[in-house]
Amino acid sequence: MTTAAGFTLGELAAALGVTLEGDPARRVTGVATLESAGPEHIAFLTDLRHRDAARVSRAGAFLAPKDAGALPAPVLRCATPQHALIDLLTLLHPPQRPPAGIDGTAVVASDASVDRTAFVAAFVVIEPGAVIGADVQLHAGVYVGPGAEIGEGSVLHPRVIVRDGVHLGRRVIVHAGAVIGADGFGYTPGPDGHRKVPQVGSVRVEDDVEIGANTTIDRATVGDTVIGRGTKIDNLVQIAHNVRIGEHSIVVAQAGISGSSRLGRAVVLAGQVGVADHVTIGDGVMVGAQSGVSADLEAGRKYLGTPARALMEAKRVYIAEGRLPELLRRVRDLERRLARLDGVSAEEASRGE
Amino acid sequence: MTTAAGFTLGELAAALGVTLEGDPARRVTGVATLESAGPEHIAFLTDLRHRDAARVSRAGAFLAPKDAGALPAPVLRCATPQHALIDLLTLLHPPQRPPAGIDGTAVVASDASVDRTAFVAAFVVIEPGAVIGADVQLHAGVYVGPGAEIGEGSVLHPRVIVRDGVHLGRRVIVHAGAVIGADGFGYTPGPDGHRKVPQVGSVRVEDDVEIGANTTIDRATVGDTVIGRGTKIDNLVQIAHNVRIGEHSIVVAQAGISGSSRLGRAVVLAGQVGVADHVTIGDGVMVGAQSGVSADLEAGRKYLGTPARALMEAKRVYIAEGRLPELLRRVRDLERRLARLDGVSAEEASRGE
Amino acid sequence: MTTAAGFTLGELAAALGVTLEGDPARRVTGVATLESAGPEHIAFLTDLRHRDAARVSRAGAFLAPKDAGALPAPVLRCATPQHALIDLLTLLHPPQRPPAGIDGTAVVASDASVDRTAFVAAFVVIEPGAVIGADVQLHAGVYVGPGAEIGEGSVLHPRVIVRDGVHLGRRVIVHAGAVIGADGFGYTPGPDGHRKVPQVGSVRVEDDVEIGANTTIDRATVGDTVIGRGTKIDNLVQIAHNVRIGEHSIVVAQAGISGSSRLGRAVVLAGQVGVADHVTIGDGVMVGAQSGVSADLEAGRKYLGTPARALMEAKRVYIAEGRLPELLRRVRDLERRLARLDGVSAEEASRGE
Repeated sequence: MTTAAGFTLGELAAALGVTLEGDPARRVTGVATLESAGPEHIAFLTDLRHRDAARVSRAGAFLAPKDAGALPAPVLRCATPQHALIDLLTLLHPPQRPPAGIDGTAVVASDASVDRTAFVAAFVVIEPGAVIGADVQLHAGVYVGPGAEIGEGSVLHPRVIVRDGVHLGRRVIVHAGAVIGADGFGYTPGPDGHRKVPQVGSVRVEDDVEIGANTTIDRATVGDTVIGRGTKIDNLVQIAHNVRIGEHSIVVAQAGISGSSRLGRAVVLAGQVGVADHVTIGDGVMVGAQSGVSADLEAGRKYLGTPARALMEAKRVYIAEGRLPELLRRVRDLERRLARLDGVSAEEASRGE
Repeated sequence: MTTAAGFTLGELAAALGVTLEGDPARRVTGVATLESAGPEHIAFLTDLRHRDAARVSRAGAFLAPKDAGALPAPVLRCATPQHALIDLLTLLHPPQRPPAGIDGTAVVASDASVDRTAFVAAFVVIEPGAVIGADVQLHAGVYVGPGAEIGEGSVLHPRVIVRDGVHLGRRVIVHAGAVIGADGFGYTPGPDGHRKVPQVGSVRVEDDVEIGANTTIDRATVGDTVIGRGTKIDNLVQIAHNVRIGEHSIVVAQAGISGSSRLGRAVVLAGQVGVADHVTIGDGVMVGAQSGVSADLEAGRKYLGTPARALMEAKRVYIAEGRLPELLRRVRDLERRLARLDGVSAEEASRGE
Repeated sequence: MTTAAGFTLGELAAALGVTLEGDPARRVTGVATLESAGPEHIAFLTDLRHRDAARVSRAGAFLAPKDAGALPAPVLRCATPQHALIDLLTLLHPPQRPPAGIDGTAVVASDASVDRTAFVAAFVVIEPGAVIGADVQLHAGVYVGPGAEIGEGSVLHPRVIVRDGVHLGRRVIVHAGAVIGADGFGYTPGPDGHRKVPQVGSVRVEDDVEIGANTTIDRATVGDTVIGRGTKIDNLVQIAHNVRIGEHSIVVAQAGISGSSRLGRAVVLAGQVGVADHVTIGDGVMVGAQSGVSADLEAGRKYLGTPARALMEAKRVYIAEGRLPELLRRVRDLERRLARLDGVSAEEASRGE
């Protein structure tokens, strides 16, 4: 986590466009967490809940919001600490661009098109008709199937598999082991068992999408499975055939979306969420972790639970569930008391006759 | 999604054995969804809920059931549209058979047996004693461990891993990144931490099984983990050591089956279902998405929920859960009213003394 | 499951340090389950619930606890059958050590350091600055990123990916397809969509850890994601950036742990458990399958459910949930009876006036 020469705080303040409180000549060589930082590090306080950890940190400097109060070392004060942190990390750890060229061990079909600025690592396979754009990085063991296209500036980490005909847009990042374009899961009952429905469609991943490690995105039966521009998908996510996800959505780890479902723009599915098939989720919906979505969800609202309910309602249900054993006792008690009363009033009634 | 020359509707009707309403000379070159089809496409209406989309479709022809009503272009009318669709897709997109032969980059042990009709792609590894049957396809980067057997006509997509001693039957399809035969997860507490139980068994996958991308099927501790004939397994499924799944079952994405559990014939586990260890699930059982199965399930029934309950009961529980906050209020109200009444009848009672 | 010559029961009793009841000259060549064993096998009865299966087993010998009663063949009686089984399996199936050396197809950076006792298989890639320790096994297609370190005696199964700077301790086992060190999932909302937070940290896996097939462990944003000594992780598990897991913990298949959460020592997460971000789970906690943990959990206790509750409470809630539809009916009934009573007492009351 340490770069060779580092930067002075003055240099950092200038580069990040933030205010420095303290000695501009002080030098830091890396960024570290509040707990692990030493005098050679700059630590970051982006969440004020960690202010106590900051006060006892040994960091040589801090990146902190304007309202973070006094800190035990020079502070780079910023209005948007999350963005300043991105700038700082990028400055101290500039992304590595491997050199252009095709490794001698790669197997590239003679009629595939590979831009001369692309990086093609060891044991990459590029099948006939595939098109690899400018500045693309295909790391070790990547497989690009027949006719697949990888747009400009995309980065495919080791062992990513892009099957035939899949289209990735520009600046797409795919993490190791992800599989894009495997057959969708479709069968029809027949006399001799399940009959496979050929999956002749493909997958279209738009610009600036990121796809996590070992995630699977299936090809459409007919047409395309679509991941909209700017959408970010975490690890071990399953996206079934003919799903369409809108722009700038977020799908957290181990979530699964069943066939033909539609997610709008800026949807957030938290971890381990399941979405049934043929469901429509409106723009801006947020679905809490482990929820199960089996019906359409209205745009702009938050949902939680299995089955997914409006967030506040789901929380009320969760709380009420915790009181269920007590509720059972209370109802039993009511029944006993009412039986006694019924007895009493039966007496009253008989007396009254 | 378009083939070069295509077919006339007359040719398609004859090939599919269905009735044509309209011009037999009209030509289509591909199949498309109702929404995306143009005049060069045949679209399919297999689910009558999409009839409205069909009525406004620009498709040049339709594949539709007999009772689908009038449509705006020639129609191939069929009794079983799902099966006709499979035939149509197969006709327009005949499966590609790569040529027999072993790629020059593949590493094949001298004492492995590879049928001369098999296709062995770049960077495949075939370890000593492995047996590769006729017409098998091993795509780029597949690994076949020592002594493993791959039956006739099986297709292993890129980077599939079949570990030592695993047996795959005939016509098995394994999608990219799946791992068959990793060690089961077994430990015994010892003085220095968890002691690993050697996993010396293997995996037996019977004929006509399909296994999804990045799915994992562990080898048995002793004996075999078994996947029965015709069973279809989706992506990212976990199947633990010594599990046995019967014939023609369906396991949907991200489901997990714990050690030594038994699934009968024609069982369906929907997405993200979890099955505990040493559980027996009877023939024909259907388990709804995200359910948790921790006890044996009776053959022929449908189950849902965590813990899994009979479907109708589970639905009643789900509905009742949604009414829980209201129920709490109603019980509180009953208690108040009863307290008042108790007061009244206490008075009555005292008056009566 | 059968070794060539096998062992006499006398040899096995001596090697395992257990008592033999029966003929010491009898020979077995393999170990098998009670159901599948033949006269040439030794079967094991480690769980007394399977005593009936043992009584009808055709096994040539048994490994059984002292209190297992009479069995139909010679018995190796032992105090700790789980440990004796490990010894027996190891004896009959001694672990295979592939020969030291680097396969001719492997691509090893000139400045990587590979111990001369290490085994490096076909199509392995070792990037610049990586360090491979003594007796390490890197099976086919393993990728070791720039500057990564693999400690002495570790075994990486085919296609494992260890990204740049990741540190694996000694005797670590990583199963096929696992990805260690992919980017954590971190973004900040920006004017043009989600802005990626550079993930410049790494992963530290301590000694004697085992990691399952296709599991993903993300690198930290800054600092390290840490897997403590002796911890065992099953298949398809997701461990997010900056998670820290203590020593000797167990994480079962398809569980997921969100960013920056901390697990103590000897924690057990059962299958498909989800842990939210920034949660702390105390030493020795056990969390039941499919639970959702969104708040800190107290050391030494058992939890279950979503949201996770103390085990006994969760079981009471599960039982009460099953009675919810009945409870609704009972409350309706109470309301009706009380309404009648209210009527009665209203009369009483009016009469009393």
